[in-house]
Amino acid sequence: MPKPFCPPGSEDDILKRLSLHFPDTPETLLIGRGDDCAMLRPGGPLCVSNDLFLEDVHFRRSYFTPEDVGYKALAVNISDLAACGARPQAFTLALGLPDDVDVAWLDAFFAGMADAARPWRMALAGGDLSRSDRLHISVTVWGEAYGAPDEPVFLARGGAMPGDSIFLVGQVGLARVGLAVLEKHGRSAIERWPAACAAHLHPLPQVDAGLMLARAGSNARPPVLMDVSDGLARDLPRLLDRSGRKDGGGLGAALVLPRGQLHPEVSRYAEAHGLDPVEQALLGGEDYALLGACAPDMLPPLHAAIPGFMTIGVVTEEGLTCNNRSLEDVRGFDHFGEARHA
Amino acid sequence: MPKPFCPPGSEDDILKRLSLHFPDTPETLLIGRGDDCAMLRPGGPLCVSNDLFLEDVHFRRSYFTPEDVGYKALAVNISDLAACGARPQAFTLALGLPDDVDVAWLDAFFAGMADAARPWRMALAGGDLSRSDRLHISVTVWGEAYGAPDEPVFLARGGAMPGDSIFLVGQVGLARVGLAVLEKHGRSAIERWPAACAAHLHPLPQVDAGLMLARAGSNARPPVLMDVSDGLARDLPRLLDRSGRKDGGGLGAALVLPRGQLHPEVSRYAEAHGLDPVEQALLGGEDYALLGACAPDMLPPLHAAIPGFMTIGVVTEEGLTCNNRSLEDVRGFDHFGEARHA
Repeated sequence: MPKPFCPPGSEDDILKRLSLHFPDTPETLLIGRGDDCAMLRPGGPLCVSNDLFLEDVHFRRSYFTPEDVGYKALAVNISDLAACGARPQAFTLALGLPDDVDVAWLDAFFAGMADAARPWRMALAGGDLSRSDRLHISVTVWGEAYGAPDEPVFLARGGAMPGDSIFLVGQVGLARVGLAVLEKHGRSAIERWPAACAAHLHPLPQVDAGLMLARAGSNARPPVLMDVSDGLARDLPRLLDRSGRKDGGGLGAALVLPRGQLHPEVSRYAEAHGLDPVEQALLGGEDYALLGACAPDMLPPLHAAIPGFMTIGVVTEEGLTCNNRSLEDVRGFDHFGEARHA
Repeated sequence: MPKPFCPPGSEDDILKRLSLHFPDTPETLLIGRGDDCAMLRPGGPLCVSNDLFLEDVHFRRSYFTPEDVGYKALAVNISDLAACGARPQAFTLALGLPDDVDVAWLDAFFAGMADAARPWRMALAGGDLSRSDRLHISVTVWGEAYGAPDEPVFLARGGAMPGDSIFLVGQVGLARVGLAVLEKHGRSAIERWPAACAAHLHPLPQVDAGLMLARAGSNARPPVLMDVSDGLARDLPRLLDRSGRKDGGGLGAALVLPRGQLHPEVSRYAEAHGLDPVEQALLGGEDYALLGACAPDMLPPLHAAIPGFMTIGVVTEEGLTCNNRSLEDVRGFDHFGEARHA
C-alpha cells in the first residue's frame, strides 16, 4: 500500500516509486540511471529538445489528472522529435514538487509518463528532484535521426520553395477549444467536448508521421516540418521565414481551410460562441499537429501512407492568406506575452 | 544599451540576448538551436545528466551575482560528466523567470553560464523559457564518453574492491563553510572567507581529472568515481554500496583525514565556532570534488598527473570510519529531507 508522502521526506522514496514505472537499467541504454550520468548507445546523430511543463502556466491540477500531467509533459517533448523526423530514444526528467503532492499522485504521474514513453520504448536516463512552490517539470528528450549515420535526414523548418504544398497532420484548433471548456467547466466538460478535451489533456505526438516524412525525404528534397505549438497563425510564419529568400524576407502562403475540414467540435464551439471557426483553428495553441511543406509530386505517396495527412495550401513568394483573408490580424499566443491562465 | 525587460515581454527578446552569448549554430553541432530539435554529430556513446538549480533551494540572489547563478547552474552539471570521465559537449537550458528579472540580469546570467561552457566549448543546444514565481533553472548536459566508440570507459560508482585506495580530487567542507558565512554575512563574507565563498559560489568541475582517471582506466580496471555533492559522509556509502559483495551489502572504508590536510578556512571556521573541522569536512555539501577508489598500483601515476589528487583511505570489507571514529552519526544533507535555507 502506498504510504502518504509527507515532505520533508526523502528523495529515495520518490526514486523507488519511479523505478516501478521506469527500469533503472533499461536495455536501450549502455548505462542506466543511478550513477552520475547515464550512457546512451553509440549510433548516428541524435536529435535533442527540451520543454517545460509548468503548473498554472501549461496545466492546472484542477482538471488534469496526475496521469494527464505525466503523459503530456513527455508527449509535448516527443512532438519536437516527431517534427524533425527522429525516433524517440530516451529522456531526462527534472521535477519540482510542492508539499501537497503525495505518493499516490506521483505514482499516477509516473504511470502517465510511462504511457507516453511506451510506444517507442523510451528510457528514463536520469533527472533531478527538488521542492518547488508549484509543480515544475522539465523534460529533455533524445531521438535517433532518420537515415544512415553519415547521411541523417533532418526535417528542418527552413527550405520551403514557392509552389510547395503546405500540409498538416493532426487537428488544429481542437486543443484550444478543449482548454476553453476545461477552464470554464473543469473535467465535466469532457462529456460534451470529448475530442477537444482529449486534444488538450492527452495530445498524440505524430512520431510515425514524422518518420514517414523523413523516409520520403531520404531520396528527394526533404519536406520542411515543425510541430504546431503556438497556433497555426503564429507558427506558419516561423516555418516560412527562414526559407532562403535572397532579400532576407520570408516566403508567403495561401491557405485553404474549408470549415468542413475542421473538427466538428471546433465548429460547434465556434457557433455556440459567435466565433469564426476558421479563426479559432488558426489561433489554435498546443495543437501538436505537424505542419510542413513539400514538393507537390511528393503528395500522393504521403497521402496514402500517413493517416490524417491533409493538404491545406501552397507556398507563395509573399503574403499570408487563409481562404483569401489576410492572416496579419490573427495571432497565436506567447507564454511570456500573454498570461493565458491568469 | 540594454532596455529594461518588463514581462509581459516576449520570448524573442530573451532569445536575442541568449544568442549574444551562445552561437545559434555552434560548430560542435550538426544543427544548432532554433528548430524543433538540435542535432548532435555522430560519434561514440554519450553520457547524460540533468540537475536542477533553484532559487532559495540551491542559491540566493541576495549573495549570488547573476554571473554566479549562470556559472554554477551549468558547472554542477558538468561535474556529473567529470565524475564519469566524459568530455563535456553540449547542454539544454530550461529557464523559469520571475517578473523582477531584467535584461541586465539575464545578460550577466548568460555571461556566467558561457564562462562555465567555454573551457570545453560546450554548445547550448536548445531549451525553453517560461514565467516562474522564482528563478528555476534545469540544465541537461551531455558529453563524449572516453575511449573508442565500441569500448567506452565509464567511471561508475560500483565496483570497488577491498584494499582499493580511496582518493579525492578537490576540497571537501570548504563550500559548506562558504554557505554558512554567506548566509550569515552576505557577500561581505567574501573578504574574510575568499576560498570558502568561491567554493560555494563558483565551484570548479574536475573535468581534466575525470579525463585522466578515464585514461588510466582504459588499460586496467577503471577507478570507481563519483562527484561529492551531498557531503563525503553521505556520498562515500553510495560509492561503496553497489560494489559486488556476495551478501548484497556494501563495502566499508577506513578514512584518514588529518586536520592538516583540510583547507585552512575550514579549520579556522571550525575553531571559531567550536566545531570539529574533520566533521565539517565530512558533512560538506556541494563540494563537487571527485571521490573515487582504485587499485593501489595506479596511485603513483595519478598523483603525478592530477593536481590536488589526495589519497584519503582504503576500502575495507565492512564498517565506515574516519580517523578511527565511526561515520555512523555523521550525515550529509538531502534537499528534500532538510530545508537547508529555510
